[in-house]
Amino acid sequence: MRLASFTDYGLRVLMRLAGAPDESISTGQIAEEFEISQHHLAKVVRELGRGGFVSSQRGRRGGLKLSRPPQTITLGEVVRHLEQRFAIVECFREDGGSCVLKPLCRLKPRLAAAREAFMSELDRSTVADCAWPGDALDRPQVAPG
Amino acid sequence: MRLASFTDYGLRVLMRLAGAPDESISTGQIAEEFEISQHHLAKVVRELGRGGFVSSQRGRRGGLKLSRPPQTITLGEVVRHLEQRFAIVECFREDGGSCVLKPLCRLKPRLAAAREAFMSELDRSTVADCAWPGDALDRPQVAPG
Repeated sequence: MRLASFTDYGLRVLMRLAGAPDESISTGQIAEEFEISQHHLAKVVRELGRGGFVSSQRGRRGGLKLSRPPQTITLGEVVRHLEQRFAIVECFREDGGSCVLKPLCRLKPRLAAAREAFMSELDRSTVADCAWPGDALDRPQVAPG
Repeated sequence: MRLASFTDYGLRVLMRLAGAPDESISTGQIAEEFEISQHHLAKVVRELGRGGFVSSQRGRRGGLKLSRPPQTITLGEVVRHLEQRFAIVECFREDGGSCVLKPLCRLKPRLAAAREAFMSELDRSTVADCAWPGDALDRPQVAPG
């Protein structure tokens, strides 16, 4: 089972913003801190904007901010939004795919229930629970056992 | 969230075999019935064999059979086996990926719990629950409302 890297990056952006909810942070800064492509990140940020998770302001003090308090944004909500273009298997595509079993399939509702169980589990946590402080990497860390 | 088409095809094979558990059916026949590539299906069948789900016998009456009663094979078990090579996001890869948040990430355990919720939901059903009778497509069907 895979999530798109697009979704993974979207979650990272929200985690970073949740770590400093009163600051505006540029996409470029997040890209640099997280060592990921700014070009790729810009697309993710546009989608987060469409989903109502972030807003961006231009100007000297501009940048990206969460549109809502991080403790009100569940991980499930974010993953549902960012993954909506992806079908779990082909019959979940908008065009229905070409599986010949479709008319009488007893698997599809079970996969749908499993997907919902996945999202429901993610609904138990919010972006605030996963907040990533901007200076986390500069702090002394306990070495992993 | 996506499952590999490899996994999707593996499930279809088991559904077909579960529909006629006393028969041996060739990979070629399943490929033809389901209108999918025999070449692709052969790889899936090998992996199902490695997982102990099917066995194949050569010869005139040879073909593919379930190795265990279909009511003892859960969907979760099959999906876990066929998806084991796929990481939900990059830090789940064997090499750990290159995400800089890894040492202090609070998202990873939540994704792991969600994946487990997905698999647990699939553990509630067996291949027998999704059995696909070989002649299902020939029977008169009620048109979808």
